[in-house]
Amino acid sequence: MKQKLNIIKIGGNVIDDEKSLSLFLTDYSKLEGLNILVHGGGKKATEVAKKLQLEPKMIEGRRVTDASNLEVVTMVYAGLLNKNIVAKLQQNNCNAIGLSGADGNTIKANKRIVKDVDYGFAGDIESVDVKTISVLLENNLTPVFCAITHNKNGQLLNTNADTVASELASALAKIYEVSLTYVFEKKGVLKNINDENSIIENINLAHYKNLKDDGIIADGMLPKLENCFVALNNGVAEIHIANTDFLTDKNIQHTRLIL
Amino acid sequence: MKQKLNIIKIGGNVIDDEKSLSLFLTDYSKLEGLNILVHGGGKKATEVAKKLQLEPKMIEGRRVTDASNLEVVTMVYAGLLNKNIVAKLQQNNCNAIGLSGADGNTIKANKRIVKDVDYGFAGDIESVDVKTISVLLENNLTPVFCAITHNKNGQLLNTNADTVASELASALAKIYEVSLTYVFEKKGVLKNINDENSIIENINLAHYKNLKDDGIIADGMLPKLENCFVALNNGVAEIHIANTDFLTDKNIQHTRLIL
Repeated sequence: MKQKLNIIKIGGNVIDDEKSLSLFLTDYSKLEGLNILVHGGGKKATEVAKKLQLEPKMIEGRRVTDASNLEVVTMVYAGLLNKNIVAKLQQNNCNAIGLSGADGNTIKANKRIVKDVDYGFAGDIESVDVKTISVLLENNLTPVFCAITHNKNGQLLNTNADTVASELASALAKIYEVSLTYVFEKKGVLKNINDENSIIENINLAHYKNLKDDGIIADGMLPKLENCFVALNNGVAEIHIANTDFLTDKNIQHTRLIL
Repeated sequence: MKQKLNIIKIGGNVIDDEKSLSLFLTDYSKLEGLNILVHGGGKKATEVAKKLQLEPKMIEGRRVTDASNLEVVTMVYAGLLNKNIVAKLQQNNCNAIGLSGADGNTIKANKRIVKDVDYGFAGDIESVDVKTISVLLENNLTPVFCAITHNKNGQLLNTNADTVASELASALAKIYEVSLTYVFEKKGVLKNINDENSIIENINLAHYKNLKDDGIIADGMLPKLENCFVALNNGVAEIHIANTDFLTDKNIQHTRLIL
């Protein structure tokens, strides 16, 4: 029987508020068994870029990462946010170890090919080194991944944090029974964006396609959910989308993805 | 018999110049056996601090780290420099893993006590977790430490990189035969600061005290050498101060510290 592994991804909104981040990390530290945390960037990168007089460039809701902005996200994601999260987990006796995909060559990516749009130093994940990650897990370390990867050719790459989480889940599902949870500020996927309690409790692929066609699911939620269905197909045991309360109460209302 | 372990610390001047850093990392990647790299900060932190309109505060040649400057050094040392060094080592097939002292609780420090001067968030090292570091080494990973530590109470701390190297060496000497090398832009400790070839080849503690009294060794070299003699007393097998050529030619003229 495979050992259980929890992969939890936290988004920008949980990170931006110091108090909710601190509460989350306290709850996270109490999780038993094997755990991996993946974190996004939050507003801090945009804030630092602005202070450095860099204009953030967005195309269709995606950040364009030129060389200067890559420096900023590397500083903020891999430095400031990752190390502060690790230090707070250590305070709670969770033996966290902060990683980018370059560290231990854990996540290798390719610079996104320019078709219509040049996203700059954006990385699409090619492979995950399951062996190195499991060495860390089996030595009671809790990997904390930021959304920076590399191409094994000396180039760091900015990578979508949701994708980092689902690719880690897919790869690690070969040797662990993986539960993947996306934690954000809402209780789950909402049927009505203006009603916080209109949570869709179960979504399968056919259901997802309908919701997408009807425009009920849109924007940033689309790639997140599509990654999830790929991960389920790759053998990830369960995927949940929930708010921070889910960590301490598995029976709380939230969205579960099913095949 | 103990296994050999090389700990090499590179200073600001090797890091500041992209070409010499790249050459160094190529040579470093060819080292056999167990290796740890420690890097300082270089000019980049001051550059970023200036761009963010933070005035660097120095007292007696030491940086005063207020909360804003701690953010900057965490971004630059643990993020930008550490991850770029790791990515370049990975390119050369050296399986590097970047760490701050918070990661895996590898280096615990205490905030420096305020006596005459308040250095802010400056850390004095209390302990090194030899077990976690040796798990990494024994799994063919090469730890790359930046000069950020933590107090195990959620606080990151800015720590002198020379001290990080000597404290790692002292602690790891319990289980490894440690060779510690400080690599910088000069060929060794110079008798005459204006003569690049006036290298003092061997320095023992008595000799060091004379050189200090005569003012031949001064400024930043003093704490570096004092740390070294502590490390030798703690069982570190050998300590060298050399330029980057020493990596590929152990017979090149340089300074060796002896008890």
